[in-house]
Amino acid sequence: MIKVSIVGKGNVSYHLGKAIEKSKDIEVIEVLSSRENLFTKVSEPNQDTLSAQPDIYILAVSDNAIVEASQRLRKTKSLVVHTSGGISITTLPKEVRRGVFYPLQTFSKKSEIDFKKVPLCIEAENKTDLEILHNLAIALSNEVHEVSSKQRVKLHLAAVFVNNFVNYMYKIGSDICQDSELPFSILKPLLTTTAQKIENLSPEEAQTGPARRGDTITIKKHLDLLTVKEHKEIYSLMTQSIQKTYGKEL
Amino acid sequence: MIKVSIVGKGNVSYHLGKAIEKSKDIEVIEVLSSRENLFTKVSEPNQDTLSAQPDIYILAVSDNAIVEASQRLRKTKSLVVHTSGGISITTLPKEVRRGVFYPLQTFSKKSEIDFKKVPLCIEAENKTDLEILHNLAIALSNEVHEVSSKQRVKLHLAAVFVNNFVNYMYKIGSDICQDSELPFSILKPLLTTTAQKIENLSPEEAQTGPARRGDTITIKKHLDLLTVKEHKEIYSLMTQSIQKTYGKEL
Repeated sequence: MIKVSIVGKGNVSYHLGKAIEKSKDIEVIEVLSSRENLFTKVSEPNQDTLSAQPDIYILAVSDNAIVEASQRLRKTKSLVVHTSGGISITTLPKEVRRGVFYPLQTFSKKSEIDFKKVPLCIEAENKTDLEILHNLAIALSNEVHEVSSKQRVKLHLAAVFVNNFVNYMYKIGSDICQDSELPFSILKPLLTTTAQKIENLSPEEAQTGPARRGDTITIKKHLDLLTVKEHKEIYSLMTQSIQKTYGKEL
Repeated sequence: MIKVSIVGKGNVSYHLGKAIEKSKDIEVIEVLSSRENLFTKVSEPNQDTLSAQPDIYILAVSDNAIVEASQRLRKTKSLVVHTSGGISITTLPKEVRRGVFYPLQTFSKKSEIDFKKVPLCIEAENKTDLEILHNLAIALSNEVHEVSSKQRVKLHLAAVFVNNFVNYMYKIGSDICQDSELPFSILKPLLTTTAQKIENLSPEEAQTGPARRGDTITIKKHLDLLTVKEHKEIYSLMTQSIQKTYGKEL
């Protein structure tokens, strides 16, 4: 049985907690707010707190709170891991056994998630700790990857493109619909298929559209139709980049 | 029973044909190549061809082929519709009863599609023809919209953002993974959730990430990590635009 303490009460903590509940191999012994006095608890252990020491502290807190929360844990003998994509393992205090447990997914309390399918990116500084993290991870998900801090920041960057920027493309689509008095829902089947296509095709194979075809007449028509300056700039830049990638430079 | 002739043998023709097969109210009397001599057939009707006249000719051909194919049909008494998002109804010859039947979806022969969920955008020049198209459309899909040529070109433009440009974001994500020796599959659950989120949330509500949060440290770190000039430009422009939209201008 792996005993964990989760620090933080946000979306990651919520979904991680729910996933652990379903597992027979892991037990959450406590969920702490990042503002609670972790320091006292671990620096002055008594009979009660000693028996309640977790194997792993999971810091499911915002990037800004990692330093402070982990500093409070610097006297613990437990493994301390954060859950952030963009933060290096070395941000955690040198004094502790450090690790990273990064679930590569977007979480919100409003929607359920199948944690078995969440890619878990793990990192530790020695074999023993990596094994502990690996056991934790495979008990929760079928997608466990050993990922270095250097790789992880790149992964987090890639996630900005396929999540945040994709969502902003939806926003522009929604704006254009609104402008034409059409419901945004009309685009949803297309948007779903676009994501599904990638299950079987590479993005290269799946790329279609006027830029890919080198259809300059449609491109010009589209640029003329765009009234928002930023949307026009994004259309131009994306089109140029697609054409450069696929050898149809104008 | 609505009798249709489909002109064109590409992806739209294929999926449309399969959807019609399942319908009891529509019959495909022929599937013609856009290069076949439609002209002779409709300009010199004999007893055979007269009985085989369709109610609707559906031009499921590429944008470039619409003018030529429809010119060959200019003597027909049947309704002639094209299936293109970006082409006006007035591109079809004046002499015929004109219409548009635009399925707003991306088709490929490799993947099945539930046609009942494909939004069908219809347009015609008079009530009778619109009613015919409406009957055709509701026999095939639960999502039928009356959309003018002016609205339709905007919709096609919006589709470029949520389909073609989104797919290019996947391509950039894939490039970054490759560069870090990570499998692109690691991003797929995130990419799927990003599309699914939009079922219940507006793109405004779903927007997260460093740009939305105004997290300048992460933004700078990401820009430093990007080695491909175009990727860096896209990251900058998207970030600026998100910040302008959500009032976190730097």
